[in-house]
Amino acid sequence: MVEPVATSPQNVRLLGYAAAALTTSSFFPQAIKTLRSGDTSAISLRMYLLFTLGIATWAVYGLVTADGPVLVANLVTLVPAGVVLTRKLQSLLRR
Amino acid sequence: MVEPVATSPQNVRLLGYAAAALTTSSFFPQAIKTLRSGDTSAISLRMYLLFTLGIATWAVYGLVTADGPVLVANLVTLVPAGVVLTRKLQSLLRR
Repeated sequence: MVEPVATSPQNVRLLGYAAAALTTSSFFPQAIKTLRSGDTSAISLRMYLLFTLGIATWAVYGLVTADGPVLVANLVTLVPAGVVLTRKLQSLLRR
Repeated sequence: MVEPVATSPQNVRLLGYAAAALTTSSFFPQAIKTLRSGDTSAISLRMYLLFTLGIATWAVYGLVTADGPVLVANLVTLVPAGVVLTRKLQSLLRR
């Protein structure tokens, strides 16, 4: 039996890594913009608190389900998300 | 044979939905803040372009892998992410 091309294990893995590459890479331009400008006024503290805790939980989920894209994407995303969260907290403490 | 409690299918599903609840809910405070203030100056356009495309891709990945938490979380996140992206684009066009 020939498996449909669209849902072959390789294609599914590629799709997962494409999704991971997009969402993970998306946080780097924000982290760079935040570091350069130092401006976090329009950034939501609640978002970055919930989001950072959330991606840490997703990483654990990826680990226990042995889902490579979910694990790797969320571990890498912790870096820029942590940068934005740290800058936001610093700007609030400085006021 | 008794499966370890920590990785029982129910617990894994709960972990996934907890992660989904955190990352998905995180974008709502940002969307509300952006709608209320109208301020998108510190928001990265590149982030929201890549991110919105990325979560749409994650939703397709969740569909083909029959992964409920991944599918639902990403479909819901499209709403607040789309709000922030739309406001950012509007503010750039208005300049």
